[in-house]
Amino acid sequence: MSRVYLDHNATMPLRSEARDAMIAAMDVVGNPSSVHAEGRATKGVIERARRQVAEASGCNPDQVIFTSGATESVSAIAYSTFSQFSISCASIEHDAVNVHRSHDLRLNVGANGRIELDPYFDVEILGALSGGRDDVIAIQAANSETGVCQDLSGLVGYIRERAPKATVLCDAVQAFGKVPMAFSWMNVDAAVLSAHKLGGPKGVGAILAQQNVQERLESDPLVTGGGQEMGRRSGTENVIGIAGFGAAAEAAQRELDAGVWDRVKKLRKILESAIEAEASQTILVGQDVDRLPNTLCFATPGWKGETQVMAMDLAGFAISAGSACSSGKVRASRVLTAMGHDEVTAASAVRVSLGPQTTEEEVLRFAEAWCRAEKKFRAKAA
Amino acid sequence: MSRVYLDHNATMPLRSEARDAMIAAMDVVGNPSSVHAEGRATKGVIERARRQVAEASGCNPDQVIFTSGATESVSAIAYSTFSQFSISCASIEHDAVNVHRSHDLRLNVGANGRIELDPYFDVEILGALSGGRDDVIAIQAANSETGVCQDLSGLVGYIRERAPKATVLCDAVQAFGKVPMAFSWMNVDAAVLSAHKLGGPKGVGAILAQQNVQERLESDPLVTGGGQEMGRRSGTENVIGIAGFGAAAEAAQRELDAGVWDRVKKLRKILESAIEAEASQTILVGQDVDRLPNTLCFATPGWKGETQVMAMDLAGFAISAGSACSSGKVRASRVLTAMGHDEVTAASAVRVSLGPQTTEEEVLRFAEAWCRAEKKFRAKAA
Repeated sequence: MSRVYLDHNATMPLRSEARDAMIAAMDVVGNPSSVHAEGRATKGVIERARRQVAEASGCNPDQVIFTSGATESVSAIAYSTFSQFSISCASIEHDAVNVHRSHDLRLNVGANGRIELDPYFDVEILGALSGGRDDVIAIQAANSETGVCQDLSGLVGYIRERAPKATVLCDAVQAFGKVPMAFSWMNVDAAVLSAHKLGGPKGVGAILAQQNVQERLESDPLVTGGGQEMGRRSGTENVIGIAGFGAAAEAAQRELDAGVWDRVKKLRKILESAIEAEASQTILVGQDVDRLPNTLCFATPGWKGETQVMAMDLAGFAISAGSACSSGKVRASRVLTAMGHDEVTAASAVRVSLGPQTTEEEVLRFAEAWCRAEKKFRAKAA
Repeated sequence: MSRVYLDHNATMPLRSEARDAMIAAMDVVGNPSSVHAEGRATKGVIERARRQVAEASGCNPDQVIFTSGATESVSAIAYSTFSQFSISCASIEHDAVNVHRSHDLRLNVGANGRIELDPYFDVEILGALSGGRDDVIAIQAANSETGVCQDLSGLVGYIRERAPKATVLCDAVQAFGKVPMAFSWMNVDAAVLSAHKLGGPKGVGAILAQQNVQERLESDPLVTGGGQEMGRRSGTENVIGIAGFGAAAEAAQRELDAGVWDRVKKLRKILESAIEAEASQTILVGQDVDRLPNTLCFATPGWKGETQVMAMDLAGFAISAGSACSSGKVRASRVLTAMGHDEVTAASAVRVSLGPQTTEEEVLRFAEAWCRAEKKFRAKAA
């Protein structure tokens, strides 16, 4: 029986459109900075992809800065403050943001996974900011582990009122391609994207940047040298990867418009129902709030997430515990802990994330295999 | 008539071995940080490439840190000093190094393009260094514009004696794959490599790092987050690009061993002789010293390099003036100026860089076309 891949939030298989665009780009000889015909043709590949990403993310092409991924994108925005701990954010943010988290200034998280701006607490937070452009406040659009979507417009509006000069950053990595979003409507200064989360190649990403962040990156670029990307990010461009990113973004947008994720959401509902029916002690995380259509996080207290992942791997299913980056280490999910779950529960969570190609048969097979394993766990524990 | 690509120092066309490895890697689903079978298979692709790069560059696999290219590699090494201008080097270094060049401490360059350590001057230089590990001194292995190779072992030995604690960095981008080199023999703390200069994809590179630089990168990584690359460089890896880098490095090594560049060197000699015979006012740069076998830099005072590049482009040949990164701007070559050439001469240089696939017929066609254009220039100037 063929394996079932249910770990799309870790990385999505390469889309055929991205694959074709990358293979085509392999034949384009030339350094994009060269002025001759070969150089101009290569530059053309990049600029086409820039238009595709801009179109899919609702911004202007000149607001798109290509990078080696979302992690670099965030490091670049954190960089100009010359401090490792320079981003005010909630502890549910991805490692790439969380590693820069200021220890003094943090945003609170409610039991449902939503950032809660406690009127007293957050006035204190925002008051502690110097109010300059070097204060970066980050809000994720959707969480990679739970799929919980933030009330971005509400939060950003609130922050804008109280800390008008702060730079607001949105980690849109998981949301981009799965839910409708337009950078021009988001009211943030910068958003970061990753190609491989929407079916492009790994190791490519972008910063979408308003004027102020563009200027920051021009004066203090993280990667500096030849002046590529308008001086905002130097280094010869990952032409083949960028071509794949552009094609993937275009295809993801088309799929989103066609309602593919509504179908995926129904498959998730099938899985949820199966788990609810069979495993009464299992907690389904984030059910009360808006979530990504493809993500299901559930915790079975006492049954370690890592153990579940290994059991399911042996049974032919790829799922994860926590985010991929940290899943090598056995530890409680920082995200679930922030939502108020105890350590045991937080260490017992797994994430199933479906993709546009996932079938009902695959979901049913997984549900059956997992429920069987859960029964065994309960029998042992009893 | 098909075009002739003679700009291999700007970027080399993708090798078929790299192409095949990249296409194969496209089918490997999974995030290399994931613990399931798909994740492990993807991790395997990276580790195989790491062994290939290590083998080709004469170091241990655990000394290879993959990055998005040589520019990021240099920025990462410069980063931990928290200063834009933190590298002591000669002004002939590539933009990626030169942008970090300390304005107080610079190394001298002789008329032949070699770094000259003037006994009085450089004692002053080295004396001005604090002598700590944060002092980075950079020496390029070979220059991208002139092909001039430095006496690396002599220079590094001299520096080691006088500034034993300084971190010595070698930009090996142009030399790697064209001349024999082994990191373990170089006596430097770090070397930076770029995949696309040896037939791999653009946007992938590496740092080869001794223990001390590994530790620097672990404590102060430029790109930080999920802890990939042993915590030395975070961000989901560019798996497809890395696979291409590994395959290209292996193929480049095989080709080097087989003596392909000796053949290329003979082609360069043919071109040199043709230019010497026809264009008596043209200066062939770096002829007296050891150069990369494929590179020919020549200046025809008064005939702008940019004009030559455009004329040759129209005639079907891709060559360059200065390095690709800066070739968009019309300006005198910083490298030739450092060698003592006047502004007019330095603005009149072009670079022809041959590749392993370049044929004698292509070289002869170029020589004929360029000499014809040069005759026209002389007629007009007269």
